[in-house]
Amino acid sequence: MKLKEFQVELRKKNCDLALFYTADSSRVNPNMFYFSGYSGIGVLVMPKNKEPFIIAPQMEFQKAKESQIKKVYSMEKKRFFESAGEIIRKNKIKAKNIAIDKNNFTLNSYKHFKKQFKKAKTKDIAFECAKLREIKTGKEIEILRKSCSYADSILKKTIKNFKSFKTESEVAAFLEYETKKLGLELSFNPIVASGNNGSMPHYEPKNIKIKNGFCVIDFGVKYKGYCSDITRTVYFGKPSQEEKEIYGILLEIQEDSIKMIRNNIKCSEIYDFVCNKLGKYKPNFTHGLGHGVGVEVHEMPNLTLNSKDRIKNSMVFTIEPGVYFSNKFGIRIEDTILFKNKVEVLTRTSKHLLII
Amino acid sequence: MKLKEFQVELRKKNCDLALFYTADSSRVNPNMFYFSGYSGIGVLVMPKNKEPFIIAPQMEFQKAKESQIKKVYSMEKKRFFESAGEIIRKNKIKAKNIAIDKNNFTLNSYKHFKKQFKKAKTKDIAFECAKLREIKTGKEIEILRKSCSYADSILKKTIKNFKSFKTESEVAAFLEYETKKLGLELSFNPIVASGNNGSMPHYEPKNIKIKNGFCVIDFGVKYKGYCSDITRTVYFGKPSQEEKEIYGILLEIQEDSIKMIRNNIKCSEIYDFVCNKLGKYKPNFTHGLGHGVGVEVHEMPNLTLNSKDRIKNSMVFTIEPGVYFSNKFGIRIEDTILFKNKVEVLTRTSKHLLII
Repeated sequence: MKLKEFQVELRKKNCDLALFYTADSSRVNPNMFYFSGYSGIGVLVMPKNKEPFIIAPQMEFQKAKESQIKKVYSMEKKRFFESAGEIIRKNKIKAKNIAIDKNNFTLNSYKHFKKQFKKAKTKDIAFECAKLREIKTGKEIEILRKSCSYADSILKKTIKNFKSFKTESEVAAFLEYETKKLGLELSFNPIVASGNNGSMPHYEPKNIKIKNGFCVIDFGVKYKGYCSDITRTVYFGKPSQEEKEIYGILLEIQEDSIKMIRNNIKCSEIYDFVCNKLGKYKPNFTHGLGHGVGVEVHEMPNLTLNSKDRIKNSMVFTIEPGVYFSNKFGIRIEDTILFKNKVEVLTRTSKHLLII
Repeated sequence: MKLKEFQVELRKKNCDLALFYTADSSRVNPNMFYFSGYSGIGVLVMPKNKEPFIIAPQMEFQKAKESQIKKVYSMEKKRFFESAGEIIRKNKIKAKNIAIDKNNFTLNSYKHFKKQFKKAKTKDIAFECAKLREIKTGKEIEILRKSCSYADSILKKTIKNFKSFKTESEVAAFLEYETKKLGLELSFNPIVASGNNGSMPHYEPKNIKIKNGFCVIDFGVKYKGYCSDITRTVYFGKPSQEEKEIYGILLEIQEDSIKMIRNNIKCSEIYDFVCNKLGKYKPNFTHGLGHGVGVEVHEMPNLTLNSKDRIKNSMVFTIEPGVYFSNKFGIRIEDTILFKNKVEVLTRTSKHLLII
């Protein structure tokens, strides 16, 4: 995506080229994937005014050839930077000022890189990448819409089958099975947190009987590399009046905060609105209100207390207020939202409290 | 694991403490997990002669408290290094020489770290961590044995059900479902590569009909954070005489290379043995012969061409020769092996060519 826009950024920063590196296929480099569609091991070189190319190990060569980058060189593992240097010199590509993504470059990778590019100056391009990725293209929006629609249909099917699950792990396994069966990936490991486990926002589902009370289900798929993110909280057993009230308050706040979104609004303003509305439950809201969604499930903008970000056209992000009562229960309601001239909620599973 | 041994390493390197950092819960820092059992966001500080502690964000505090580290501080996100600095000063812990893991520290994290520890010198502790992790404790061996046994039973169940699967994705989904249902994690996204897709060692299963011919299934689970890794190749349809022969040759080589393992043998010697035995198929073997297995699915030792590693007591690693014929097919046979006085194959699913 946005290859030309990225080259404009390179020229603005007086960089001759950008170099991205993935050392391990289990740790996808999001920027490398964003620009190339390649998620394997290797190096992506993007000169400011020439064709980009990939250097991939022999065993990933075929995969790299299927990416958006036409020029692919096959290379032995562990000699990526050496190969990059050779190809750059051979093709007479200027490499005095090199942009690298310092959020996805380890100190040791940098050491190896510097051996091959001794005289080059490096500049951090992480922020520019994040800003490009924050505003989605029409094509990305269509993919994200589809990703959310898949997440919805899998979550709905799971909720419909809820009575057949005995353990938290079974719920998570079912979500994952339905995802993989369609040839999709997970955005992240699903959270299925029943009873007092729900008080941990990042709880990992266990092979234990689903506890009575609220059950937080946080889930998303990756479709063509693009994430969706949705949370619903259901109830096992009979909720008390107080529990129903708290759920109702949170749902109203979630819906109202979505309604207030407009072009150029400060993300911190939406966050403040939620905190004020929460009143006495404000201390029970222990995380951010939301985050951008794209090739990563957490990207810009940040909808948090001190965020300087603003909502702009073609941003896709979550709104996910939650309240957590230590060792008692937790409730979170989350949607993935598109802002394009108006607010559009991309995840559409019902938010009425489902009692199982 | 090995907290005391690690402190000995710190003293040997003249380091006052080690500091590990995880910025993103979807990217577990393997060394931080290894020493603490904590896989969330935060900082782990391990002084050379005092009790280690964790700084975790509020929403992961409870999770951190359940780790092996008794001292846990709750802190707002994004102020980890500042908190670490404060706590270190308050507790009068010397911090002139700080060990960090430069394989798991990005350039930008380092920048933030340095703001708080301006005068400190940093030393890379990545290699020492890898060497400690390479030799497994009795407890780790028992966990790894169990992890392999889970992988076996799930793979066997999958193979037994093979006729009911229509697509590669369905096979992968089933492997994953059975894993998650037991409350386990995957070691990596399973590979299910049928027909000519098998010629890509790192192929990602697609929502396409399983093709006739060889089908490579590469799979592993994580039990208590420890990986297993196994590959079997089955056959759909009727294999030709030549195909059966190639499978037979590869299987014999895999078994013979396991038999030759002895204490202190060079990993490159085992690799060379396989290459020689492969004869005319040597160019079709396009990856390493194996790798250590532990909290990461790829760790030390490396069983590759130029490896300087040697097999020592209590190492756990894979032996996985493969042959790949571009656009035709691939075969790989992989086991996870323990060497402890003698060779023990931890993954036990049958290796006879299964014809479906």
